[in-house]
Amino acid sequence: MNRILDIDPVEQIAVVDPGVLNAEVNQAVAEHGLFYAPDPASTAICSIGGNVATNAGGMWCAKYGVTRESILALRVVLPDGRILDTGRRTIKGVTGYDLNALMIGSEGTLGIVVEATLRLRPKPVHTATLVAYFQDVAAAAQAASAIIAARVQPSVLELMDGKTLEAVDAAQGTDHAARGSAFLLAQTDGYGAHLEQEVLIEAIRPFASSMEQATDADQAEALMAARRAAIPAVERLGRVSICDVGVPRNRLAEAFAGLDEIARRTGVRIFTVAHAAEGNLHPIIAVEPGESITDGPAKEALAQMFHLAQRLGGTLTGEHGVGLLKRDWLQEELGDVSLGIQRAIRDVFNPDGLLNPGRAI
Amino acid sequence: MNRILDIDPVEQIAVVDPGVLNAEVNQAVAEHGLFYAPDPASTAICSIGGNVATNAGGMWCAKYGVTRESILALRVVLPDGRILDTGRRTIKGVTGYDLNALMIGSEGTLGIVVEATLRLRPKPVHTATLVAYFQDVAAAAQAASAIIAARVQPSVLELMDGKTLEAVDAAQGTDHAARGSAFLLAQTDGYGAHLEQEVLIEAIRPFASSMEQATDADQAEALMAARRAAIPAVERLGRVSICDVGVPRNRLAEAFAGLDEIARRTGVRIFTVAHAAEGNLHPIIAVEPGESITDGPAKEALAQMFHLAQRLGGTLTGEHGVGLLKRDWLQEELGDVSLGIQRAIRDVFNPDGLLNPGRAI
Repeated sequence: MNRILDIDPVEQIAVVDPGVLNAEVNQAVAEHGLFYAPDPASTAICSIGGNVATNAGGMWCAKYGVTRESILALRVVLPDGRILDTGRRTIKGVTGYDLNALMIGSEGTLGIVVEATLRLRPKPVHTATLVAYFQDVAAAAQAASAIIAARVQPSVLELMDGKTLEAVDAAQGTDHAARGSAFLLAQTDGYGAHLEQEVLIEAIRPFASSMEQATDADQAEALMAARRAAIPAVERLGRVSICDVGVPRNRLAEAFAGLDEIARRTGVRIFTVAHAAEGNLHPIIAVEPGESITDGPAKEALAQMFHLAQRLGGTLTGEHGVGLLKRDWLQEELGDVSLGIQRAIRDVFNPDGLLNPGRAI
Repeated sequence: MNRILDIDPVEQIAVVDPGVLNAEVNQAVAEHGLFYAPDPASTAICSIGGNVATNAGGMWCAKYGVTRESILALRVVLPDGRILDTGRRTIKGVTGYDLNALMIGSEGTLGIVVEATLRLRPKPVHTATLVAYFQDVAAAAQAASAIIAARVQPSVLELMDGKTLEAVDAAQGTDHAARGSAFLLAQTDGYGAHLEQEVLIEAIRPFASSMEQATDADQAEALMAARRAAIPAVERLGRVSICDVGVPRNRLAEAFAGLDEIARRTGVRIFTVAHAAEGNLHPIIAVEPGESITDGPAKEALAQMFHLAQRLGGTLTGEHGVGLLKRDWLQEELGDVSLGIQRAIRDVFNPDGLLNPGRAI
């Protein structure tokens, strides 16, 4: 179940087994000048099937959308053995309900995906990458909002707080934390990448303490690698729980202030990275060895993060899914009507609860 | 039910009643430098509620996607009077199944939309528009494929065949048909709009007999207006039925050849416009006054068009929906398993068949 079954470079489509890794798809299609846009930081170890189950996002979804925007069709086995085909190979299509979108993000509770048809995109001809450092995370969040307000469409807009920078430096031997207490990685792409970067620079200049433009692909890749290293770097420091709240994009600064307050109140350490263009934050809770990550202060911090997101008009989970950990708060976000409808839909596909029992819905 | 309830220019969101017209949204948000991307040719007369019901597309969806990609949240009244909220105000979110996507394109069979939260986008800072004329529609279709293959991302890529050009000329006093038997309208946008247009021009040069670049906004608007006029212009010529098949993008030329063959076999007149970047064709069948548009040769032509789309790996309907007209072919495209699941989902929302009875599913 980990074969790439077909690549159609003209139609810009790939058909794959669900066990194929995200990075394997991008390796295979690169020679055609194409890429598969949903690119979680875990690209080297996450499978397309897993990406479909959670509607995974990643760094490029600032511009190219999440997994849902890049899956044209799925073949699914239902619990009774019937095969359900959802979606189609065309870009558009409205024959019947959108079962394809329903399947994406359903966390394995509606059927088992056995084949996925991916929409590929032309690899941008140019990219322009920079990193900006800030005195504090609030300034970085304001800069991210200023980019959106300047009508720039970054392809990547990633924020890391000071504690995460320190962890990355410790793991990688870099010195990001010496340059600021927050880091914003911004990439523009396409034919106008460099023109767009100029506008972006003007937008963030009032907030940044320094900026560095990547002058070649290696420098750009090193900056992207720093961001990709964030979660593994924090994982070296203790047992962690990675949260995944989403807030409206212009409330990022409030979200960071709220996270600081939660860290103070509960005594846990919180390291935060964010997909800033979509307001999707990953506060990472780290506890000392021996302490519980699913109970006590860690659980309390997680609950408070969820309530913070709700208060700011946001969501429990931007791209990781509900799983086991977040089931307690599902009803609060969705309400009884939606939850009832969702359970009835699950029963249409999975009446005996055989698929991923006890998770998600 | 036709009020614009809220515009948040910072968050780039509008909340509207379903009766608001598509064009009214764009008029209201223009002052903030924003636009609502799903823009059917019928923008001046179609409502947001209707757009949601059919997952409408339009000219901009080459780059910006269909209605589904621009609706963040819906408020829906179920047949038993309960209120269901789907989606959220954040860009991303995976708490529970994607009921928002399920609702979009459901043609009023799952609930009555009473409020929609729209995702707005920054109005492109630059646009570059051109029209190319071709000796025949096959050359125009090849040019469209060449644009995709050149990794250009047009924001608009619209094709009209010679018969449609004649109808537009007759209605508008223009002379497009004198310049070619097919017309391709291409727009690029963003900071690199003009650089991207240069690449686009090189891609289509081998196929085009002539090209004209719009030198100002008025000229660009006149070209867009020609395309918008296509369906009303054909409607002056007789009773019409507008078909909406989709095919993989690189099979456009085959689709046009097949449509010619269908016109010959059935004796009906077919005028075709296409959203070429997505392989979505609107063959318009026109019959003489007094002839039936739902029976006889017109119905036969419609059936043959659907079979043509299926043979090319395509779909019955790209953006108009199933309605009454296409119900006969639903099973053939979806198959029994999908259709059974879809009917069971309909029954979750609408168990007594009160909503839009006899339509779609």
